[in-house]
Amino acid sequence: MPKISNKGVKMPQSPIRKLVPFAENAKKRGTKVIHLNIGQPDIQTPEIALKAVHNTDIKVLSYARSEGSETYRTKLANYYKKHNIHVTENDIVVTTGGSEALLFTIGSITDTGDEIIIPEPFYANYNGFANANDVIVKPVISKIDTGFALPDISEFEKLITPKTKAILICNPGNPTGYLYTKEEIEKLKNLVLKHDIFLIADEVYREFVYDGLTHHSVMCEKGLENHAILIDSVSKRYSMCGARIGCVVSKNTELIQTVIKFAQARLSPPTFALIASEAALETPQSYFDEVLDEYQKRRDILIAELQKIDNLKVSTPKGAFYCIAELPITDADHFAQWLLEEYSLDNETVMVAPASGFYSTKGSGKNQIRIAYVLKKEDLIRSVTVLKNGLIKYLVNNN
Amino acid sequence: MPKISNKGVKMPQSPIRKLVPFAENAKKRGTKVIHLNIGQPDIQTPEIALKAVHNTDIKVLSYARSEGSETYRTKLANYYKKHNIHVTENDIVVTTGGSEALLFTIGSITDTGDEIIIPEPFYANYNGFANANDVIVKPVISKIDTGFALPDISEFEKLITPKTKAILICNPGNPTGYLYTKEEIEKLKNLVLKHDIFLIADEVYREFVYDGLTHHSVMCEKGLENHAILIDSVSKRYSMCGARIGCVVSKNTELIQTVIKFAQARLSPPTFALIASEAALETPQSYFDEVLDEYQKRRDILIAELQKIDNLKVSTPKGAFYCIAELPITDADHFAQWLLEEYSLDNETVMVAPASGFYSTKGSGKNQIRIAYVLKKEDLIRSVTVLKNGLIKYLVNNN
Repeated sequence: MPKISNKGVKMPQSPIRKLVPFAENAKKRGTKVIHLNIGQPDIQTPEIALKAVHNTDIKVLSYARSEGSETYRTKLANYYKKHNIHVTENDIVVTTGGSEALLFTIGSITDTGDEIIIPEPFYANYNGFANANDVIVKPVISKIDTGFALPDISEFEKLITPKTKAILICNPGNPTGYLYTKEEIEKLKNLVLKHDIFLIADEVYREFVYDGLTHHSVMCEKGLENHAILIDSVSKRYSMCGARIGCVVSKNTELIQTVIKFAQARLSPPTFALIASEAALETPQSYFDEVLDEYQKRRDILIAELQKIDNLKVSTPKGAFYCIAELPITDADHFAQWLLEEYSLDNETVMVAPASGFYSTKGSGKNQIRIAYVLKKEDLIRSVTVLKNGLIKYLVNNN
Repeated sequence: MPKISNKGVKMPQSPIRKLVPFAENAKKRGTKVIHLNIGQPDIQTPEIALKAVHNTDIKVLSYARSEGSETYRTKLANYYKKHNIHVTENDIVVTTGGSEALLFTIGSITDTGDEIIIPEPFYANYNGFANANDVIVKPVISKIDTGFALPDISEFEKLITPKTKAILICNPGNPTGYLYTKEEIEKLKNLVLKHDIFLIADEVYREFVYDGLTHHSVMCEKGLENHAILIDSVSKRYSMCGARIGCVVSKNTELIQTVIKFAQARLSPPTFALIASEAALETPQSYFDEVLDEYQKRRDILIAELQKIDNLKVSTPKGAFYCIAELPITDADHFAQWLLEEYSLDNETVMVAPASGFYSTKGSGKNQIRIAYVLKKEDLIRSVTVLKNGLIKYLVNNN
């Protein structure tokens, strides 16, 4: 029997995936599962994007240009201008989702055994893209008590070796909902300039920033042109997760030329999705205003309801649509499985993402869960009731 | 300035890409460029596939299941049954094109520094996927004089080391058009079983087999269940190159489970394209009959016309829609560029793919070009006239 590679063996499985069979069993038993675990928005995709695909008169569904058409990249550059990010079409490579943008970026700047520093908890699939490139993730822990603010910059500096090729942040953060301040970005800027490494920012939640705060992109930093790499995607912005269109943006032309070589090897991003994504750029501002208003209300309700639970600690997210909650338990993986396997309230239960999967330091986040607030307000309220009762019952049974 | 990785520096550029600026300049000068260089069929995509996308009533363009929906995989298994390939939905992982299928397969079975043996000339992007995985391609040269038949099996065996993880073939072949016989597949089977390595077969041109010949899949070989990996794609089958839907198929469950982990990290194949691909499975047989008839006629005309050129050697393809032609020149890269830069016949020229990019052994294929016959018959005839005159003129000027 031929062997799987070490890389293949080590390829991490999503922390949520392990729970899927338990959720399926719960559904088979007739229990309704409220999904607090996923980042799939229920918000409608802009009609203008869907219509563009419905109305296309394509006869041959042919390859798109590997790096994306000049038209789409030019329009994207205009979109960025509105967000104070000044780039041209030549600074953009269109990718198959933010996932591929990360994969190509890591491939372009790291070799086997190189290291990337990431504040944790972080988006679990960063581990997968790093592993696929044989790259080691060096985590710097951020704390719920500071709302997952940027850890002291000395914590990053301690980890820098000749193998360190980049610092990777997600801003606003999945799973933390934290929004980095301009000052924090500038601290990172000084560090990467000092050590001449890249600063990669996954900014796919740019539009989802609450309380009137402003998102500050790494691309706005003067002097960081050769060091800043922006990872982006249409998935969350237009509730188009299934499109699989993203991009890499950088003023570093050598990097862009390298990413293009990776893009050429896989020939083309998906053509239908490109049509939808280009049309989506015409989405009226009112769409974003409504969506933002909806998410802010959801966040407010979710956080208010969670704060009513005894001994639960939650940091109020300033962006994205996730929050991390710390529970008075010792093993959130066990709790999450228990919720699906053994518990229900009036035939309902909740599925949450155990936070341990978002940490790279072993043993971290074992008492935390991630909650995605991509449900209607009434469902969120109900879900917290179900969660709260579950927690009480679990503590009685398991402590 | 932070550094690009060695991997990024070594990432090969497509051999055709280098010519694109020259083709663009030719067009700017008003010269019509006939494209013999690309594998983008001009055949219409089945209406049933396009209609399915036009008519979808999706409101939220959400993620698809990472490995593809059970429905689609079940229907795919039925499709394979018609081709004498007996697999279930659990043996299939849906990918973003054949490209991703190869990337995930190589990642699942190789670590840094491992080796894959490939008969050359081979599809140039295999180099890219190998390089992205830090894997070394060991070529075994096949010859135009045998029509690019499988080289003697001892040539493969000579190259096998503990680092060899797989043999990769393309059947029918791009760029050769060669169709492996059952006997050749069985020779490879015996070899991979003896050395306990994988046999990866890229069979995306399965439908394009001429002269009443039958395609013989590695998946049909008894005893090869744990060693055979099929790479597939809808791109050529339904003239849907822009869909970006492919798959990995294998009876080796450990391999499939590993590929699924790679698939989960990138979340989802493109949803619109999945809708098109699932609908495309209902394409009537008459579509394939017509397409095959058209390609066979194109092949016949192209080969007949090429054979009229003095000192040109061409092997008659039995499948796919490419052929390799050997010219009485020493540097096809130079010739291909010259055709675009300095030559025209009645304001027309041709763009061909220099074959050197399809060889991994340095210096090989320097007098060969690849021609794709994805054009209408009259355009093919005209293109050979333009090519022939170009060749005569080139020989006068450059020899």
